[in-house]
Amino acid sequence: MQSDSLVRELFAEICRIPLIDPHSHINPHRPASRTLDDILGYHYYTELAHSAGMDQRPLAADFDPRQRIRTILAHMERFDNTAQYGWFLEIARTFLGFSGERITAADTDTLWDAAERLMAQPNWEDEVLRRSNIEKVFLTNDFDDPLEGFDTTRYVPCLRTDDLVFHLDKPEVRQRLAKTTGIEVGDAASLRRAIGKLFEHFTRHGAKACAISLPPDFMPRPGPEAFWMLAEYCRDFQLPFDLMIGVHRRVYRHGVYQGQDLFDQRTSLLQYAELFNAFPEVTFCVSVLSSGQNQELVSYSWIFPNVVTHGHWWYSNIPAYIETDLRARLQAVPKTKQIGYYSDMYKLEFGLPKFNMYRRVLARVLADDFVHPGILSETGAVQLARCLLRDNVERIFRI
Amino acid sequence: MQSDSLVRELFAEICRIPLIDPHSHINPHRPASRTLDDILGYHYYTELAHSAGMDQRPLAADFDPRQRIRTILAHMERFDNTAQYGWFLEIARTFLGFSGERITAADTDTLWDAAERLMAQPNWEDEVLRRSNIEKVFLTNDFDDPLEGFDTTRYVPCLRTDDLVFHLDKPEVRQRLAKTTGIEVGDAASLRRAIGKLFEHFTRHGAKACAISLPPDFMPRPGPEAFWMLAEYCRDFQLPFDLMIGVHRRVYRHGVYQGQDLFDQRTSLLQYAELFNAFPEVTFCVSVLSSGQNQELVSYSWIFPNVVTHGHWWYSNIPAYIETDLRARLQAVPKTKQIGYYSDMYKLEFGLPKFNMYRRVLARVLADDFVHPGILSETGAVQLARCLLRDNVERIFRI
Amino acid sequence: MQSDSLVRELFAEICRIPLIDPHSHINPHRPASRTLDDILGYHYYTELAHSAGMDQRPLAADFDPRQRIRTILAHMERFDNTAQYGWFLEIARTFLGFSGERITAADTDTLWDAAERLMAQPNWEDEVLRRSNIEKVFLTNDFDDPLEGFDTTRYVPCLRTDDLVFHLDKPEVRQRLAKTTGIEVGDAASLRRAIGKLFEHFTRHGAKACAISLPPDFMPRPGPEAFWMLAEYCRDFQLPFDLMIGVHRRVYRHGVYQGQDLFDQRTSLLQYAELFNAFPEVTFCVSVLSSGQNQELVSYSWIFPNVVTHGHWWYSNIPAYIETDLRARLQAVPKTKQIGYYSDMYKLEFGLPKFNMYRRVLARVLADDFVHPGILSETGAVQLARCLLRDNVERIFRI
Repeated sequence: MQSDSLVRELFAEICRIPLIDPHSHINPHRPASRTLDDILGYHYYTELAHSAGMDQRPLAADFDPRQRIRTILAHMERFDNTAQYGWFLEIARTFLGFSGERITAADTDTLWDAAERLMAQPNWEDEVLRRSNIEKVFLTNDFDDPLEGFDTTRYVPCLRTDDLVFHLDKPEVRQRLAKTTGIEVGDAASLRRAIGKLFEHFTRHGAKACAISLPPDFMPRPGPEAFWMLAEYCRDFQLPFDLMIGVHRRVYRHGVYQGQDLFDQRTSLLQYAELFNAFPEVTFCVSVLSSGQNQELVSYSWIFPNVVTHGHWWYSNIPAYIETDLRARLQAVPKTKQIGYYSDMYKLEFGLPKFNMYRRVLARVLADDFVHPGILSETGAVQLARCLLRDNVERIFRI
Repeated sequence: MQSDSLVRELFAEICRIPLIDPHSHINPHRPASRTLDDILGYHYYTELAHSAGMDQRPLAADFDPRQRIRTILAHMERFDNTAQYGWFLEIARTFLGFSGERITAADTDTLWDAAERLMAQPNWEDEVLRRSNIEKVFLTNDFDDPLEGFDTTRYVPCLRTDDLVFHLDKPEVRQRLAKTTGIEVGDAASLRRAIGKLFEHFTRHGAKACAISLPPDFMPRPGPEAFWMLAEYCRDFQLPFDLMIGVHRRVYRHGVYQGQDLFDQRTSLLQYAELFNAFPEVTFCVSVLSSGQNQELVSYSWIFPNVVTHGHWWYSNIPAYIETDLRARLQAVPKTKQIGYYSDMYKLEFGLPKFNMYRRVLARVLADDFVHPGILSETGAVQLARCLLRDNVERIFRI
Repeated sequence: MQSDSLVRELFAEICRIPLIDPHSHINPHRPASRTLDDILGYHYYTELAHSAGMDQRPLAADFDPRQRIRTILAHMERFDNTAQYGWFLEIARTFLGFSGERITAADTDTLWDAAERLMAQPNWEDEVLRRSNIEKVFLTNDFDDPLEGFDTTRYVPCLRTDDLVFHLDKPEVRQRLAKTTGIEVGDAASLRRAIGKLFEHFTRHGAKACAISLPPDFMPRPGPEAFWMLAEYCRDFQLPFDLMIGVHRRVYRHGVYQGQDLFDQRTSLLQYAELFNAFPEVTFCVSVLSSGQNQELVSYSWIFPNVVTHGHWWYSNIPAYIETDLRARLQAVPKTKQIGYYSDMYKLEFGLPKFNMYRRVLARVLADDFVHPGILSETGAVQLARCLLRDNVERIFRI
């Protein structure tokens, strides 16, 4: 079909755009996987296997890793309909030489051995990045990360601030803060000085963003509290502030590690109106968790000069919701105010299948909504994709 | 078109899967219709005719049934765009020999007479089930239903508990409970004993689920109240608990019978987090009323092992919303945790058009999202459909 | 492709339906544009240019209009992906002789001069309406509008009541009310008399609706307040009441004129249940701002005889949301209870591109959901479109 070949061509062209991944959880000291356990240890697989009936014993630290993988794969046929299974299949095919149709527990040893052999190659990290066409990857750094021992032009530091805003009452957090900044926080003034030290430290090491995840009922208020200070320092240090809005932590208390959090759809960007008004100089890169919130995000970034759309986050990060959310963004938000996608990955191997998932949806939406009705040429559509995937990242994060 | 012929083939294959309908309001003593009045007495038709301008006089018990039908059909052209009109047209064509393009008031006598003649056939009930490919139908039984006089392997009892949770303050409900259980409920202990009796009675008669519909602001709390006790007994008796979340009763107070209830989109599954945490052994089959709630349901059933998606309920039960909601479920929820569809019907004749509506959407989604992009073969897609429509119902409800 | 040619044919047929535009902000004393400044002064362009980085100096009253247009066009390439850019391109092509692919700042003088020349033609207003196939346009009139000096059969007055409900505490509003009605409002009785005078004045001048926009947290209550009185007078004067639900004013306080308002998705039509119950004789034409609210609207207009769906408003007025919202309405709401679309325009030239945007989506939905599956013939689909775009407007507003 003509339409399909157009989508394929657009996808191929979009894949040629060298990527900067503006949000991940990569450990820069160990960015790529070393075993299949690193791949399937990703919470998507442990939580889906658990949700589909696997108990948590195989996830214990002292459980034999190869048997852990066998157990997860044995449960995978219960969720082989999911987008997450699709990521793993694409990793197995692209990076591990898998050529079958479906992956089952019977493939455990073959895949394990292939991963062990291939990932031990000295150029594995470079090779994964090269094949994924990813040039730079943003990190998520704790405030007391020394940010040393890695190439900060490839792995771009970002100051993650959840601890400062939500856990400053915990003695261990205060101790970490004191140790890092040399300041014992006792009042608003000392907190402000301490946070200032962190911004100095991070920007000196090439940090390009400040980031935080926020519960659905959070409402920032002006005053001497950590959140507002962070916005002030973002303004002073010219750092965009990534707001990841909508997640409650530990909703499923017996869930697997990182598989316990969920959202409440009853949240609104109206809660952030005062913040957006108060800091016109700060660019807020906003991630949301549902299509209801996305419709608000589309409207808020259409109106507020300092609000931009940021990727497709977590529970919204499946093709059905990406397509819905992306179509609206492309029709209503200035193209210069949209950051297309980030990987959110913990290991480099996931960049390729996750960005590919997005690129396939993007190619389809560009074909259906822009090229097919004559609004853009194929070349114009690819330029629009480049704007979302590359140009905006460079400009907004000052790279 | 190639795509269309694939959808047609998938639909034909899916129709071959013998169904178990996991939720209905069938009266097992009179499961099939006897007249056209039974068909068009379904609240969808009376409420749509009323909404489109029909006053309620024709709905009075003493109104001549044939004239009632003539009046409803006379108003039907005002809503012949709806999915519900489509169900009726399919019933008329499949079961009543109707061969026209549109149904109007002029068809009243022909349809009435055909219905009277055909529905009087001794094997009508069996014939409707056979043509609909439905093997078993779940019921909705009041707690004081004797559950006798019908084949409980064909018509599967379910304990409906709205009265116990929301109307226990009414003397007539307490009297019915006392009469059924022999227990005068006066405190938490006696209530617990009475509910225990009901579970014994129901499971002895082959009940396979406990069910309740809940208002959007309901929030279950641990303690000596009926709802929490029901969950405890579901655990003890190994019954799944069907939660139908989101409906306010009597919003349109002057509406027709069963046509008065509406929802409030401001509700969240977060309200059920404590319940889901407290009863890991109970499977909660959750129905919701909007696509906003569906996105939460997708995420909650992705994370909680004991939460499964259950059909497409009421105001969400039209193709536009089924498609949106189904696509997300198929991409994000383990396939073993999805119960595809239930009819919610009051008369057997509705099983065929309602399941067909779902099967058409399912065939289209499987074609577009799985077969066309090469994720599943046609055979694999039909197996996925069987998982949703048959295998999961058998396993989850222990049939 | 066969499907595309069907959509094109349906679109062409739908364009032949002569329109009555049931909501606009046209100034009947100056309905058409006189310069390009009138076109690009529409808040969609000023707010998108500002959102994309334009400061507000060019919007000052004393800024040279041609340079203002040059500045806006210079920023337009940052939002040339949006539906709003598409409206402008269609205006330029249809009305201003533009034949290029994209509009840039380099086109300023050509477009400005063409607009100046063409819009000065004595028959410009008639010509725009003729080419747009629009026969009548509803207005939005302040309560103290004399409603004189224009043809009220072409420009249909509507009583806009925001001031009465939300700003009656302001001295200037009371003074305007006193001047218009001769009544100094001091208590509920005098308020009631004053509002009665307004209804007399408006209906004597051919008004066909009462309208108001409401914040998301508004909840009408019976009693001696302006809103409830308005509903009473709508009943007494047989005027439909347009409710535009969901907008907070001045959320972005530093935004451009008319570019400051946003919504909060946390709102429900349940807030209006008492109103809908209390006034069965009043038709409420309801506009909403999000697809979440639209799903409620679909259900409420399916159940309440006096609730009808009204157009696709503001932030929902882009193809992605129109399509989603329209599909559900067409599948679930009686066709006689849907008012397809209104322009919301301030200048006549926008009627054509805005209605075309809707008509394109409508043609696609009718093709995919009705003609293609054999539910309607092409002729039947066009009749359904006529019902939404013409017949219902005439019947509901008694034209």
